[in-house]
This record gives sequence, C-alpha cells and structure tokens, in this order.
Amino acid sequence: MTAAFADRLVENVKRAGSPLCVGFDVFPERIPKLFGDAKADIRAVLRFGEAFIELAGPRAGVFKPQLGLFEQYGADGYLAAGVLSEMAQTAGMISLLDAKRGDIGTTADGYARATIGAAPGFNADCVTVNPYLGRDSIEPFMKVAEANAKGVCVLVRTSNPGARDLQDQQVNGEPLWTRTADMVLPFVERLMGESGWSGLMVVCGATYPAEAAKLRAILPRSLFLVPGYGAQGGTAQDAVAGFTRTGTGRAGGVVSASRSVLYPEAAHPDVALEDWRGAIIAALEKHAGELRAACNS
Amino acid sequence: MTAAFADRLVENVKRAGSPLCVGFDVFPERIPKLFGDAKADIRAVLRFGEAFIELAGPRAGVFKPQLGLFEQYGADGYLAAGVLSEMAQTAGMISLLDAKRGDIGTTADGYARATIGAAPGFNADCVTVNPYLGRDSIEPFMKVAEANAKGVCVLVRTSNPGARDLQDQQVNGEPLWTRTADMVLPFVERLMGESGWSGLMVVCGATYPAEAAKLRAILPRSLFLVPGYGAQGGTAQDAVAGFTRTGTGRAGGVVSASRSVLYPEAAHPDVALEDWRGAIIAALEKHAGELRAACNS
Repeated sequence: MTAAFADRLVENVKRAGSPLCVGFDVFPERIPKLFGDAKADIRAVLRFGEAFIELAGPRAGVFKPQLGLFEQYGADGYLAAGVLSEMAQTAGMISLLDAKRGDIGTTADGYARATIGAAPGFNADCVTVNPYLGRDSIEPFMKVAEANAKGVCVLVRTSNPGARDLQDQQVNGEPLWTRTADMVLPFVERLMGESGWSGLMVVCGATYPAEAAKLRAILPRSLFLVPGYGAQGGTAQDAVAGFTRTGTGRAGGVVSASRSVLYPEAAHPDVALEDWRGAIIAALEKHAGELRAACNS
Repeated sequence: MTAAFADRLVENVKRAGSPLCVGFDVFPERIPKLFGDAKADIRAVLRFGEAFIELAGPRAGVFKPQLGLFEQYGADGYLAAGVLSEMAQTAGMISLLDAKRGDIGTTADGYARATIGAAPGFNADCVTVNPYLGRDSIEPFMKVAEANAKGVCVLVRTSNPGARDLQDQQVNGEPLWTRTADMVLPFVERLMGESGWSGLMVVCGATYPAEAAKLRAILPRSLFLVPGYGAQGGTAQDAVAGFTRTGTGRAGGVVSASRSVLYPEAAHPDVALEDWRGAIIAALEKHAGELRAACNS
C-alpha cells in the first residue's frame, strides 16, 4: 500500500537532506539553445526538463511544475507538464503540481481528477488549490486525495505584493488569511500520515517570521509550501521561520526556488552541455545547502 | 478593427433577444449515446458539442465552456475545449471560457495567453479569473485583454454555499466581496466599450437582490455574469436583479444556465437525434424566453 502523501514528502526531504522544492517555470527564452528552440517547440522544453530532472532528482525531494507556463503552448504544453511530472516521480521526486485550481462541484472534481487522479489525469502527488470559493471548493480535491494517498496544498498567504489586497484585509482584528487557515483546519486530520504531518499543505509566503509562526500555531500539523526564496528575495532563514523545531532540526515543509536553480547566470542560452550541467548542479547544491544550514541553525 | 469585447457581448445579447449564456458542462454519463461513448472517447463530446452549438448559436449569445470538465480527459480534453470554443465563435457566439485561473507574474501571463490569447491559446473572448492573489494576479489578464479586444471576468461573489466562508467575511462592516469589487474598479475604464459597458466583467452570484444591487452600485459599468439560474435553483427574476433598467428593458450582463439547457429530461441518454434536437431547442427557448420576460418586466 502506498504511504500517505505527507510521509512520502517527509521521507523525500530526509533523503535529499534539504527541504528544497524545485519550481519548474518554463521561460522559453532562457532555456539553453542546446535543447532546441523552446519558443517554437515544446520538445525543447521536454529535453530541458528531462536533463534538469536527472540532476535534480538526487539533490531535491520535490518537483513543482508551474502549469500556467506549460499552458502557454496549448494542449501540447498541457501534455508535456504531465510527462515531466511523471519523469520526476520516476526519478524519485514528489510531484507537486502548481495549478492553483479552484471551482465547485463536478468541475472541482474534474480538476481534482485531472491533477492528482490517475490517467488521463496527471497523477501528481499534490496540487495547489485556491480557497476563494470556500470549503465546498476544496472538498472534491480532498476526496480524490484521500482515495489515492495524495496531498492538497491550499493557498493561504501568498508572497506577492497583491496578497495585501484581500488576504491581509482585517476580519475581526485578524487578517483574512487566518480565516482561510481556520477554514482548512478540519481537513488536516483526513490527510494525516504516520509521521505526524498532514498532506493538507498550505502555501505560507508570509512576509514576516511572526506571521509564519502565527500560521504554524493555527495549523501545527500542516506541511508548508514556502515560496519567495531565491530569485524572489527571501533568505533561507526567513523561509524556514514557520517550520517546527525537532530533535534533528527544523522540519514541516518545503521551500520553493525556481528561476535561481533553473536559470542561474552561468546557464545562459548559449551554454554548452557540460557547463550547463555544472551550473545547474552548483545552483541546486547552493540552495539545498543554504536551506539545510537554516534548518540546522 | 475588432469591436471592444463589451460591445460585442451587448450586441450578441441583443441579437439573441435574451441574456442567456449557455454553460457547457461535460457530464459524460448524461451525453446521449447517439454521439458515442463520452465516458471513453472525447470525440463523442466533440460531436455532442458541435450538434449543441448548431442549435444554441441562433438562440443564445454566449457559450461558456467549463474547462475543468474537459481537463478530466487530459490533454485531449484541453484540446477539445479550444475546438468547441472556436466552433461557438464561428457560429456567432461569444466564447466565455470558465477557467477560474489565478496566479501571478509570468505564470498569470501564461494563463492569460493560453485562454484569451491567439493560437496556441484558445483565443476565447473572455476568461474567468480568481481574485484571491490580488491586483497583480489580474493585471496580466488585463494586458492580454487590452491588446486583443477581449474581456476579463473576475469572481466577486459566487453562488455556492462555500461563498460564505471567505467572500462574506465582514471587513469594516462590509462583506469581503465588496472589497474585491473595489479592487477591480480601477480596471473597468481600461476595457470600456462604446456601448458604455466595460469588458471587466464580474461574477455576481448574489443570494439576495439587495446584494446584486449593492454590487451594481460599486461597479455600474461592469457586465455581470450571473450563475445559479436553472438547475441551481434561482429564478429569472432574481438573476437579473443586478441589471440596470434602460429604455429597452434591463441590461448589463448575461445569465448562465448549464445542466438545464444541456441535459433536459427529454434529452436522456437513449434519445434519438430528432427528439434530442427538439428537447434542446425547447430548453433553450424556455430559458431564453424566461430571461427575456424578466428583463422586460
């Protein structure tokens, strides 16, 4: 029997020795020409992704494809996202599909089966979900997750400037995102693993360590997906502020870096294969190492 | 030069003589067998959709494919949604893609080009967008809409029970959804048509006519997309409560019905083609007529 999603994620973080989650953002003009013309040909993206996953598999536990950047290629891109998600799983990684879906009833069920359901779904391990439509928009994802030992990752507090517009609005003296956290709390138990962590994940792009601690207090068993590290400017120390101190260091989530591991400066468009491999390995090891140190400090 | 999206929508409502928007929800088990086995074969969905559009084109101005119910078929379903969207446009309808996308930066731009952008995008006329991530998650859709005379439809108040969980939370004595409406107000002018209506649409699934009137007061020029009519239980009179009284009746949006026009009782799975056509025409004319009467009352 497949282990609970949360347990598989925790195990993968241990294996990699770091909570690094590599965000796979397709920027066609930054994909090295040695893989082909990514602006015109989705196969160049597939070659690039395959080569990247080969290097990332041993160095990071989680692969996070950004679905919107695949959809810019139409149905071919949609197909390619599923192919790379499966390649990452074959390489031993957890596939956390960043799709930010949100709908109700049968449509939400359609999205749930399309993302974390078996073929023709992507069969990803977890999917990001938008909470604006309320509990009944999350329930269909919960059902598919429960039936397939998968996870659901709810956007609670995102890391972009616009998070202030609605998420930070004050409701009874607390920001709205704390209500979002309250709303998902009843779902936590249903995806609980033997590790004591739940596969009901939350996006915690909290701006200040005090906010991350507040979210942790509301959801002590939820694994966090922390964006905003690397190119977006947050430090490794800030990124793990919402993690829980354990006997073996801070734990309780993963930290995502995308552009800074996929497109480091030395991996420029005209790079040769061996130089590209060296640049990617260096970027992966730098980020994994920084996060490992932050968890152990 | 292509007319502004808002003007094209208003013109289409006039042509159809009703604000009916047909939601295209793929329920495989309810698609008549005469089109094939829709549970196993996306081509049955395409045949069903093509036959439906032929009947809907002259009777409704707007076609709203529900993308999540196509994605349950994987990349083939994603492709089929684009094919039917284009068929509806060829039949003279506005294609309003119900995708409920929401993301930031380059990913939001990817979703915008994928939905309302030219090929390989769907080239739909308008797309539904989730506001939880704030203004910077809507801006990329605005840019693609401005450049292509398209529309953007923001979820403000949805019609599901879960809308109470976050959208109805009180912020300074007003429900959060009024903050969402305030947030999109600055975008209205950028998609203004010569008709005086803006292609910055909003989903108004208000439970009470007084709420619809409140949303109309905040956004007097925004076209409304009103869900919850037909199978979901709302009356035609309630549905147009947020429309504006004009010399020629109430105007200012479209009202969506899905199951009740696609799968009326007489269009059961074993129906014959001519009976199916009769049942669909009757359902379309019933709904269009009820809404026409409500607008004229």
